[in-house]
Amino acid sequence: MRFEPADPSFAERTRASFARQGIMDHLGARLEKVEPGRVEISLAFRPELSQQHGFFHAGVLATIADSAGGYAGFTLFPADSGVLTVEFKLHLLAAADGERARAVGEVIRSGRTLTVCRLDAFVEKAGRSTHCATGTQTLMTLVGRAGVKD
Amino acid sequence: MRFEPADPSFAERTRASFARQGIMDHLGARLEKVEPGRVEISLAFRPELSQQHGFFHAGVLATIADSAGGYAGFTLFPADSGVLTVEFKLHLLAAADGERARAVGEVIRSGRTLTVCRLDAFVEKAGRSTHCATGTQTLMTLVGRAGVKD
Amino acid sequence: MRFEPADPSFAERTRASFARQGIMDHLGARLEKVEPGRVEISLAFRPELSQQHGFFHAGVLATIADSAGGYAGFTLFPADSGVLTVEFKLHLLAAADGERARAVGEVIRSGRTLTVCRLDAFVEKAGRSTHCATGTQTLMTLVGRAGVKD
Amino acid sequence: MRFEPADPSFAERTRASFARQGIMDHLGARLEKVEPGRVEISLAFRPELSQQHGFFHAGVLATIADSAGGYAGFTLFPADSGVLTVEFKLHLLAAADGERARAVGEVIRSGRTLTVCRLDAFVEKAGRSTHCATGTQTLMTLVGRAGVKD
Repeated sequence: MRFEPADPSFAERTRASFARQGIMDHLGARLEKVEPGRVEISLAFRPELSQQHGFFHAGVLATIADSAGGYAGFTLFPADSGVLTVEFKLHLLAAADGERARAVGEVIRSGRTLTVCRLDAFVEKAGRSTHCATGTQTLMTLVGRAGVKD
Repeated sequence: MRFEPADPSFAERTRASFARQGIMDHLGARLEKVEPGRVEISLAFRPELSQQHGFFHAGVLATIADSAGGYAGFTLFPADSGVLTVEFKLHLLAAADGERARAVGEVIRSGRTLTVCRLDAFVEKAGRSTHCATGTQTLMTLVGRAGVKD
Repeated sequence: MRFEPADPSFAERTRASFARQGIMDHLGARLEKVEPGRVEISLAFRPELSQQHGFFHAGVLATIADSAGGYAGFTLFPADSGVLTVEFKLHLLAAADGERARAVGEVIRSGRTLTVCRLDAFVEKAGRSTHCATGTQTLMTLVGRAGVKD
Repeated sequence: MRFEPADPSFAERTRASFARQGIMDHLGARLEKVEPGRVEISLAFRPELSQQHGFFHAGVLATIADSAGGYAGFTLFPADSGVLTVEFKLHLLAAADGERARAVGEVIRSGRTLTVCRLDAFVEKAGRSTHCATGTQTLMTLVGRAGVKD
């Protein structure tokens, strides 16, 4: 799908908002790609991100996937609007055993009030990528809420 | 619902597994209650856990909710079995604006292979609790996988 | 939860809208209860409603559950507004083997634009009720769309 | 994705099972395509399939989407095994206003016990196709259950 961003400064706004998410820095997440309707976030493995078997915790994947989807939607929103996650679902397809995780959010449907995204996460180990999570997400565009513009 | 745990040492096993989840310590999460089919996890707010508006990030709530549900199921599993999240969904009902978050996982259906849990999250601010997230989760019992017993 | 309906004629409007859903009559579904934020629909088993093992098809449960949730939300909407399902998820907890199915929709969160409901379905067989499905649903209130008022 | 069916008679078994789903005939649904890991079902509009605005009811789309996904998974299952829907989620992306609906189920992950599918539904009106629903589904392979082989 091809999307036309409503605000030409969508990438700067997205990067600025990402920088305000304290959890991204705390996890070590990086905003890799910001395209109209598509965002990628990556994360290097550390024991601080693990579940009990030493793999990425599903919630850590959910965190970067939720932000990837939220910002994918945000790239298409008007200037001075904010983004809110309404709900999301994630299937864990394979053990998230890897040196690096990557989350991709992509807009499926872009509406005035609601946006639907697909979320995917991959882990890379010894040069091989495994699709470890997939799901969907509903976002809401917030317009005219005092002070909310990301 | 009342559940009878298959393993009388369910609470010790759950606490030991929780202690191995590196992300729980990294977020500052605490295992508050471990009952048959029901687990509570709490988390104090810090700027390191925030999204762009300064509230708890939805992924942080998802992380403690996923573990609360996973361990709620795990309390009913046989000894020497492990737990795996198959999928979960979370609705964000209200801004997670608070000094503390609390996630509750409760078993709805306990099966030999699959378990279904309800997930809820609350934030507390100035003594008032707000129901900020709800959802459901499917878990799988892993039996006889080498080395997997939590 | 207690909800105060915005429109005192909520029950009449709900019953009139239900009567316009052609599929309800085609399945044989009946609107059993209409309360503020809570609706029940029932359905007698017929071979025409079955999946391959002779039980209620999951989609048939989803159909009455979706309408039960949609109308549960609708009871709280302003007059002259319409209801739209944004998304729903359903877990199949047990074989839907029974003489009768019953779906219950209950509002968890009632907002100006979005409403979240819990969906449950039960089957009755030889006087015994089994909880066979559970899930959640997001609804949208449609205001000011030409001709849409249910 | 390319999948290798475990049972060369997968298409015959799928068609025979579909023919036993009473609801498919009651709705007027047809099994259009049966490929390894991918199944399509179509349905002509009738007022008996409608919600209150005269479009396909979301539950009707869910019914054909659930069967499309279930049979997509089933095409890859061993002979003498059965299929069970564990859960599914569906987003309604656009009004299902059309003369015909089409549901596509596609396997994303094929496992020994669990299979994950993507579900999509489209409506056709005046020669134009609209993507009206999307979602995901978890299936379980039933092996060695007396009498269950579809």
